[in-house]
Amino acid sequence: MRETRLFRSVLAIGAIGLAAAACSDGNGATPEEAVVGPEAGPSMAAAPAGRGGPALPGLLRGYKRIVDLTQTLDENTPVIGLPAPFANSPGYSREEISFFDARGPEWAWYAIHLGEHTGTHMDVPCHWLSGRFGDCIDDIPAEELVGPAIVIDVRDKVANDDDYLVTVEDARAWERRHGRIPAGAWVILQTGWSSRYNDPAAYLNGGHSPGPSKELSEFLAYERDVRGIGVETVGTDAGMAGTFDPAFPNHNIMLGAGKYGLTSLTNVDQLPAKGALLIAAPVKLRDGTGAPVRVLAFVP
Amino acid sequence: MRETRLFRSVLAIGAIGLAAAACSDGNGATPEEAVVGPEAGPSMAAAPAGRGGPALPGLLRGYKRIVDLTQTLDENTPVIGLPAPFANSPGYSREEISFFDARGPEWAWYAIHLGEHTGTHMDVPCHWLSGRFGDCIDDIPAEELVGPAIVIDVRDKVANDDDYLVTVEDARAWERRHGRIPAGAWVILQTGWSSRYNDPAAYLNGGHSPGPSKELSEFLAYERDVRGIGVETVGTDAGMAGTFDPAFPNHNIMLGAGKYGLTSLTNVDQLPAKGALLIAAPVKLRDGTGAPVRVLAFVP
Repeated sequence: MRETRLFRSVLAIGAIGLAAAACSDGNGATPEEAVVGPEAGPSMAAAPAGRGGPALPGLLRGYKRIVDLTQTLDENTPVIGLPAPFANSPGYSREEISFFDARGPEWAWYAIHLGEHTGTHMDVPCHWLSGRFGDCIDDIPAEELVGPAIVIDVRDKVANDDDYLVTVEDARAWERRHGRIPAGAWVILQTGWSSRYNDPAAYLNGGHSPGPSKELSEFLAYERDVRGIGVETVGTDAGMAGTFDPAFPNHNIMLGAGKYGLTSLTNVDQLPAKGALLIAAPVKLRDGTGAPVRVLAFVP
Repeated sequence: MRETRLFRSVLAIGAIGLAAAACSDGNGATPEEAVVGPEAGPSMAAAPAGRGGPALPGLLRGYKRIVDLTQTLDENTPVIGLPAPFANSPGYSREEISFFDARGPEWAWYAIHLGEHTGTHMDVPCHWLSGRFGDCIDDIPAEELVGPAIVIDVRDKVANDDDYLVTVEDARAWERRHGRIPAGAWVILQTGWSSRYNDPAAYLNGGHSPGPSKELSEFLAYERDVRGIGVETVGTDAGMAGTFDPAFPNHNIMLGAGKYGLTSLTNVDQLPAKGALLIAAPVKLRDGTGAPVRVLAFVP
């Protein structure tokens, strides 16, 4: 089994190399993309034939590549730790059902166990008291799983302050440069925190991690009608937000306003400040208060 | 808690009604979509403001609506049953971590337990002996999570034969009408079987359910280089395929050829025979042999 995984890793690295080579080749554009008529609608002819090939021509006109913002779930996935008497969520674990043996000679499969709010996941209104009668995961209309993303880069401020709270002024500075934050947008706070992900102690950092200020959450929910905030940290509130008034203000405000949240994002540095389209596709859990989510960004 | 859920259901039904009304209004097009120049790229201006509004103008030019092909995961999710001595996968269950109580006064959340191959899920090569050294879930390049879908409608044949095996001739009949099945396409077998989903006994049907013939899997994998087969049934092979030679031929052939599978799809009757774009977004499980997947179709 170890050999299998090693071999698989080598194959995977090879595939990534190929894909990277293809991406850097002519900016991802194909001859077909260049000559296609401006009135052309969705096209089947330009579908990619295999990995490493151009990804999106014809099918998602205007987007050139996909960035996967999702962390991989495994036993090392960092999990938020709450002080007593609060109950904590389990991390990720899996158990083997069969592995090419008498229990299943031709197949391998596993059962998995995890908290709804483990790894890269989505928060929805019914997770929080303020949004208790609002939408759970399976109530979200499919249209709301697709929307524009904007990225507010506060890495320089976080570099000097693990507890940095992103301000309304940070958002207004973004708007002065890029225009008004559109309604329905995901607002991604680029803190650089995902670089710590593979070191859970540094990632959780004793409860010291950046997040939105209460005022920013209010501004984005009430004055910009965004879809929600996306973060690189373990939760959509700052690490110390349990001590704030109200406690966990972003959860309180956003989920109370019918908005959502995305956590533990990665590869945020591969997104433009604006212009990306986000697909945030959660596992469809009945009455889920949150769910593991695959987050893909289409980048122009 | 029951009252909470009841109230939530009423809210959800209201939201669905609003969304449906909006969809039937002017075919989902907006004035902005009608006047936008043909050279316009991805636009932030036309982002939807909230639910019920037009979903995709400007962002996914050429697509008018999204169809969610995903079944909701819950305790009633049907699970395949294998005969002894084979081990079986657990169904879906969840346990409460807190529900607005002393364990978490302002939040509700759950832990979940399920097989990787439970409900609407994706099969990948490392699930099967023939593809054992191929890709697991986390190896799949993001580009391969996006691709065209074609739908082969065999409902009339399945109506007369629960064990119907979709033939190469069924695929060729589709091609005579719609053109060659493109490389990289998801081929969805429309059997109508999802109508049985909420009655697990009828859905599993004592092991009698339709699927692809061995020859169809070979044709699609080797002569059409598709991305995989999508089905409305519990697995990508027919219910009796454990008795075939080779056993479970679609798994054997497709996963051995580096292709994927999608199971337990719903709302297939809302797709056109061709022209839809599928986003199949699995939970990113490390070394996953499969994973719960959210499947969204963009429809022109």
